[in-house]
Amino acid sequence: MSIEAAISELIPLLGDRLSRSKGDLAQHGRSETYFANMLPDAVAYPESTEEVSRILATCHAQDCPVVAWGTGTSLEGHALAARGGISLDLSRMNRVLAVHPEDMDAVVQPGITREALNTELRATGLFFSVDPGANASLGGMAATRASGTTTVRYGTMRDNVTGLEVVLADGRVIRTGTRARKSAAGYDLTGLFVGSEGTLGIITELTVRLRGQPEAISAAVCAFESVEAAVDTVIATIQSGISMARIEFVDASTARAFNLYAGREMPEKPHLLVEFHGSPAGVAEDAERLGELVAEFGGSDFAWSSRPEERNALWALRHNAYYACLGLRRGATALVTDVCVPISRLAEAVEATRADIAESPLEGPILGHVGDGNFHAILLVEPGNEAELAEALRLSSRMTERALAMGGTVTGEHGVGMGKLAYMPREHGEAWAVMGDIKAALDPKNILNPGKLVQRN
Amino acid sequence: MSIEAAISELIPLLGDRLSRSKGDLAQHGRSETYFANMLPDAVAYPESTEEVSRILATCHAQDCPVVAWGTGTSLEGHALAARGGISLDLSRMNRVLAVHPEDMDAVVQPGITREALNTELRATGLFFSVDPGANASLGGMAATRASGTTTVRYGTMRDNVTGLEVVLADGRVIRTGTRARKSAAGYDLTGLFVGSEGTLGIITELTVRLRGQPEAISAAVCAFESVEAAVDTVIATIQSGISMARIEFVDASTARAFNLYAGREMPEKPHLLVEFHGSPAGVAEDAERLGELVAEFGGSDFAWSSRPEERNALWALRHNAYYACLGLRRGATALVTDVCVPISRLAEAVEATRADIAESPLEGPILGHVGDGNFHAILLVEPGNEAELAEALRLSSRMTERALAMGGTVTGEHGVGMGKLAYMPREHGEAWAVMGDIKAALDPKNILNPGKLVQRN
Repeated sequence: MSIEAAISELIPLLGDRLSRSKGDLAQHGRSETYFANMLPDAVAYPESTEEVSRILATCHAQDCPVVAWGTGTSLEGHALAARGGISLDLSRMNRVLAVHPEDMDAVVQPGITREALNTELRATGLFFSVDPGANASLGGMAATRASGTTTVRYGTMRDNVTGLEVVLADGRVIRTGTRARKSAAGYDLTGLFVGSEGTLGIITELTVRLRGQPEAISAAVCAFESVEAAVDTVIATIQSGISMARIEFVDASTARAFNLYAGREMPEKPHLLVEFHGSPAGVAEDAERLGELVAEFGGSDFAWSSRPEERNALWALRHNAYYACLGLRRGATALVTDVCVPISRLAEAVEATRADIAESPLEGPILGHVGDGNFHAILLVEPGNEAELAEALRLSSRMTERALAMGGTVTGEHGVGMGKLAYMPREHGEAWAVMGDIKAALDPKNILNPGKLVQRN
Repeated sequence: MSIEAAISELIPLLGDRLSRSKGDLAQHGRSETYFANMLPDAVAYPESTEEVSRILATCHAQDCPVVAWGTGTSLEGHALAARGGISLDLSRMNRVLAVHPEDMDAVVQPGITREALNTELRATGLFFSVDPGANASLGGMAATRASGTTTVRYGTMRDNVTGLEVVLADGRVIRTGTRARKSAAGYDLTGLFVGSEGTLGIITELTVRLRGQPEAISAAVCAFESVEAAVDTVIATIQSGISMARIEFVDASTARAFNLYAGREMPEKPHLLVEFHGSPAGVAEDAERLGELVAEFGGSDFAWSSRPEERNALWALRHNAYYACLGLRRGATALVTDVCVPISRLAEAVEATRADIAESPLEGPILGHVGDGNFHAILLVEPGNEAELAEALRLSSRMTERALAMGGTVTGEHGVGMGKLAYMPREHGEAWAVMGDIKAALDPKNILNPGKLVQRN
């Protein structure tokens, strides 16, 4: 590899938008969680697809690694420069290129964040639904197949990205998908690039689905005596066909973190946070039916609200859960892990994880998008404490192996990155080799985010 | 290639389940539509994944083409043996392997048809939603990324297949996806095989999502004075956020075909066929709001029904639309073509197609899943009449080019097969080369359905 040669060639193209400052390298060589820093050799700030294409052509010719960077909010070390090279910071490509209200889609650049997009959409009566905890970039969300609290109703990035512009490893630019709602015209390349974590190409434009602001919204919080009662309520709700827009679980430890972080007064018990979207009559009907189920499973403190301020405060708190939980232990960082299991196994999976953590010296709040069977443990560790990290990894490993044994997946939404790479053979078997074959076909020199997701030397 | 050597090797494995009878070859060498017959050299009837694996290993070693066969109801010649070889008839692998009511999924073999699956599910309160016109096999529906009348609510095969077992070209068996509702663990291989038309692997098992039978169903038919009024009603309905389970358009010519085929007395005008699924109150509310929109756009003969027999008759007729339309001309076959455009361009696309057909000597009913922006023309031609086929291809070509110019796709649901292959470069540009790279990586000897979907020698 000739990283220095690539950098020399890129200077005339990018000028001071190719940075080698210590601050830039440090900022693009760290993660939000427990991973060791891995610095790039330079940070590039392209402003157009054409520039991305020229950067990749150069890096391809010079065998220089390229790691895409959105907002750096990945929880699995996706954007660390495991083999150095160029960190490709797409934050300057952050425009909304078009909004088509009649078709309920928008064309955006990858650097725009989900909150910025929704701010721009405010006057249209439409919104973009996918909402991971962080205010992530759309490009990063697509690359990691992100989801969030509304996935139970509106789907993940897989369901909400209908087309892409992608720069391939050698600099060629392709478009995938169309603005039609569906297509049967060939391999689903959009779906292939969504979730490919920057290993197959660099996303430079996205067409995303928008949703109509619901006529009526209603949100509720209620407490339960046990994890099982809360999760069984979720299962019963799903099976009864009630159409939820959000149904989130937080355990007693997370409730305590919320109280500390935001001065709330939630009982320190497992809770469900629920939201319905629909017509006024539909929402009222759904709320009533949920109320009956909650009572059946012994839930209490059942409180409805359709006041926007209250609702917004509730979901802002949920989105800040990671930071709230970090507040449970001064100076802590965390190993944040997520799995997704079939709904029928969810109560068992959550309860076994809770029991594991209860027996461990570490604190680890559990919360999740339980309507999808997806939950997280935020395992709090002291930075640099190797014994604690080893214990957190042991707990995470048990949770992950259990998910696989139950027919689930080692990550519902955080992605593979560095943190789940070791589980790929167990989850995929021979199919992981097929992923490697696809990687080799599209990036034969392995310059795109090397060391992540697939097995290559 | 050594097709004969492959066949010789397969005889000891399959015995009389490897057929070279004229009847079998003819049955597996024809399509439902206008394509010339292309016969395989033998038809294999495997009964297990293990047998499929051994067949593929043999054919791979011998460079013998393998074309998967479900029910033969493709409209684009997908299953024709363009280069001879083995037609792999999966109809004996037609069992339901598991139903998980709590998780609302089922594991099935590829040969089961959608109607047989729904019959087996009847007692569970669940159903499988994807409903192309034909009673197709689940494997074929996955391979062509099929959709149907309920896609506007429940999605296409892409949205309803969560995992696959696939036999690769060399006989290796892989599993993709899990039983979890979502995953961020690596490339979406499930999505890659769905829609790959038998060119990347043979699907031997599918995990599919099931839906709860709605508490209340209501269906309606109404007539409009113009195509535009009908389509504008659809657009307004979508934008108003009314949640439809089905919204189908049929033109005046299709209405006439329905009257002839099933003795109905529909006015010979454009119609919408609509269905709502939900709670009793929700369905009533939706129906009322649709009624207001229909009135606004001058619709008439607006008739609601929640009686199951009436509804079932209506949708059975819609599913038989292809055969009903063939009845408009004695002895006709048809070039059936489908495109999908952004909803905002739908009225224009349908109207321009209608005008084209009106100026042509051919008859061509238009109908479609307009809630998705997807519509079909059934261009009736005399079998063997080259001039008429050329005219039908000219009309289809205009419709297809127009869809591309509008930001749409050359096929919303029928797939590429033989009929849309020539449009791949126009729709995908350089991305078609990427599809070819993936094909080369997974099927280097090009034995799987050669001559379809991608460019290979």
